[in-house]
Amino acid sequence: MALIVQKYGGSSVADADSIKRVAKRIVDTRRGGHDVVVAVSAMGDTTDELLDLAHAVAPIPAPRELDMLLSSGERISMALLAMAIHSMGFEARSFTGSQAGMITTAEHGSARIVDVTPFRVREALDDGAIVIVAGFQGFNRDTRDITTLGRGGSDTTAVALAAALDADVCEIYSDVDGIFTADPRVVPRARKLNVVSAEEMLELAANGAKVLYIRAVEYARRHGVMINARSTFSSGQGTYVLAEGMTAPEGSEADQMEEPVVAGVATDLSQAKITVIGVPDVPGKAAEIFKIVARSGANVDMIVQNVSAAATGRTDISFTLPKAAASAALRALAHEQADVGFENLVHDDQIGKLSVVGAGMRAHSGVSATLFEALSTTGINIEMISTSEIRISVVVRGDDLAEAARVVHTAYGLDGDTEAVVYAGTGR
Amino acid sequence: MALIVQKYGGSSVADADSIKRVAKRIVDTRRGGHDVVVAVSAMGDTTDELLDLAHAVAPIPAPRELDMLLSSGERISMALLAMAIHSMGFEARSFTGSQAGMITTAEHGSARIVDVTPFRVREALDDGAIVIVAGFQGFNRDTRDITTLGRGGSDTTAVALAAALDADVCEIYSDVDGIFTADPRVVPRARKLNVVSAEEMLELAANGAKVLYIRAVEYARRHGVMINARSTFSSGQGTYVLAEGMTAPEGSEADQMEEPVVAGVATDLSQAKITVIGVPDVPGKAAEIFKIVARSGANVDMIVQNVSAAATGRTDISFTLPKAAASAALRALAHEQADVGFENLVHDDQIGKLSVVGAGMRAHSGVSATLFEALSTTGINIEMISTSEIRISVVVRGDDLAEAARVVHTAYGLDGDTEAVVYAGTGR
Repeated sequence: MALIVQKYGGSSVADADSIKRVAKRIVDTRRGGHDVVVAVSAMGDTTDELLDLAHAVAPIPAPRELDMLLSSGERISMALLAMAIHSMGFEARSFTGSQAGMITTAEHGSARIVDVTPFRVREALDDGAIVIVAGFQGFNRDTRDITTLGRGGSDTTAVALAAALDADVCEIYSDVDGIFTADPRVVPRARKLNVVSAEEMLELAANGAKVLYIRAVEYARRHGVMINARSTFSSGQGTYVLAEGMTAPEGSEADQMEEPVVAGVATDLSQAKITVIGVPDVPGKAAEIFKIVARSGANVDMIVQNVSAAATGRTDISFTLPKAAASAALRALAHEQADVGFENLVHDDQIGKLSVVGAGMRAHSGVSATLFEALSTTGINIEMISTSEIRISVVVRGDDLAEAARVVHTAYGLDGDTEAVVYAGTGR
Repeated sequence: MALIVQKYGGSSVADADSIKRVAKRIVDTRRGGHDVVVAVSAMGDTTDELLDLAHAVAPIPAPRELDMLLSSGERISMALLAMAIHSMGFEARSFTGSQAGMITTAEHGSARIVDVTPFRVREALDDGAIVIVAGFQGFNRDTRDITTLGRGGSDTTAVALAAALDADVCEIYSDVDGIFTADPRVVPRARKLNVVSAEEMLELAANGAKVLYIRAVEYARRHGVMINARSTFSSGQGTYVLAEGMTAPEGSEADQMEEPVVAGVATDLSQAKITVIGVPDVPGKAAEIFKIVARSGANVDMIVQNVSAAATGRTDISFTLPKAAASAALRALAHEQADVGFENLVHDDQIGKLSVVGAGMRAHSGVSATLFEALSTTGINIEMISTSEIRISVVVRGDDLAEAARVVHTAYGLDGDTEAVVYAGTGR
């Protein structure tokens, strides 16, 4: 008998029928002899609808009240899910974030979990009940107010509960079968991975893969929680995300795999590129520029500085950042143009980022050569390059990104024998 | 500077525009120099929609989870209302029932308030904030679970808060201008009352008047809370409901009124009549019958027993009860027919009940004669009669009820000079 934490996203509980289907899945797990704790998101588009209402009554909703509002979405879904399980003859108890002991910082809208005190969850498990916990929300001890965890909060709720309860596995359900070697909508020959290491998963998620949220994976890695990403709509085993020292459960498809050099190819069309032209090539200018950009609220991703042209004593600095943050960053830079002394700003939102991720890169040479050769053979131009210990990323034209992903996927021998089934949604 | 508790029903906060209108009304009260605490219901049809969802996932929803589900409706409306006030430049803080200290019994769906510990409400008032409290919900200390108060719960929340905070007045807003001498949809010449005594209000509410809930009026009477029933959509002073020893506020329309003998005429089409025919006229038979009816879950209202026919030694017993409870009561009686020994059951759901209510009846004679004469002149037959110290009720044919109400209203001199404005909704 194991203790299993499951997380179901909004699309898995979008209506009464989906809720009943998820209830059955939970009951089946319980019938398998396991203790089950479930973290659940708000139904379908509830959160967006509540946000729309908030903006209809207040241009800038008060953060405390916005968290109070949004946290009601998960109360609805968790109560309905508990009722559905109850009516199948199983004892089920729902708990809000604060009832479940999800203690967070006080930052409304992006609170971080600082402690988990799941006394009532344990009590309910001891009573033989299935426990349903509202995802995405917590409670601050000082203000005694409800908080929300921000994007991907329900994944984090599930992982944090799994850590606090010392669960055997944290199953994160969505509408895709697991983690793929690439986005199947971009690369039809993408294959589902049986296992992926947590560090690879972090790089994939940070570079465009959308099945798991970085925060949740990071939390799982730090607290030694085994994540199993799988589909609500099929019985496949999904993908095990293994932190250091973990092995996939016995009997799973995953326990006999040899580790490949490259785990997957991630694609990302959400970034824009800004080039600051004619920056005086004196120490401290780059720091000045990126301080201005940071103050505008943007997270810079890749940075490339050209070699200075000796004749002018000036250089160009390019960087990428989320498209949504570009206009604020441009305005901030333009505002300080005289002080910084650069000549011009160029904005390009037609870029695509391709990343190749694999823990095997540490031990194998020639991994980057394969990437560059595959792209050059296809005539795709590389505009920027950045690397980490287990990742190589390149920026190409956005229009070239899909083709680039397909040829690189083939070049690393990742192609499957059949085309992957593609779902419409994203699983949130 | 006064402390004013206000309650807004679901139709007053049905959408973003209504919420903004209510927010403005609250802000205007605050601008008048008063402290304001608001109890708010769920938006429009939210509660019914949540109930539909519950029944779609579970034929008989688990009561604990149903309360968790339904209580989310008020969290949504209260957070939106607080945001709207905030964006008008006023500090506002919303609290759930449990945060506001509404301590209840553990009966899910029909919990009773046993204590109110509004520490956080007081703190927020001391900080100069407008306080918004979720109506209809509370918290049980033993189970640590969320409860709901049942029908009219938000009115009760408001009155209980007013009592605990020692507020000057509890304003209950709906879409009607106050308490009328009759339902204006039935009696077009009905007049708004400026004051009504709590005991009259209880009789009116118990006999079909729908503006205030009995529980809330009873709570107000017991704890000495002055209720002011008024409209969200007009600036009229509404009706003051005064417990013993209270007088209407100085300067209100109400403080110079002479108390009339009859306060109002209530009509009720929600009851059915059951007649048990040929009951053996021996002691204990009535008790037997009403025990059976009570066990079926029905609340019996009026009872009439005919004089026994000497020849047969049998009598007929008629009683009224809510239409919705009639079929269960009939089944229960039929099941025990042999034991009780009655001959037949007759069910009549085409009845109407007319009640005349007035504290002045205690001191004046001839009040009932006016009623009977008015009806007999119009040729309306009286089928049953019951009285209390300050009320006379009669049962007539349902089709005759409106006409009966109009002639009785005229006979007691209650008619106004103009026809009342009639609204579509009920204010909940």
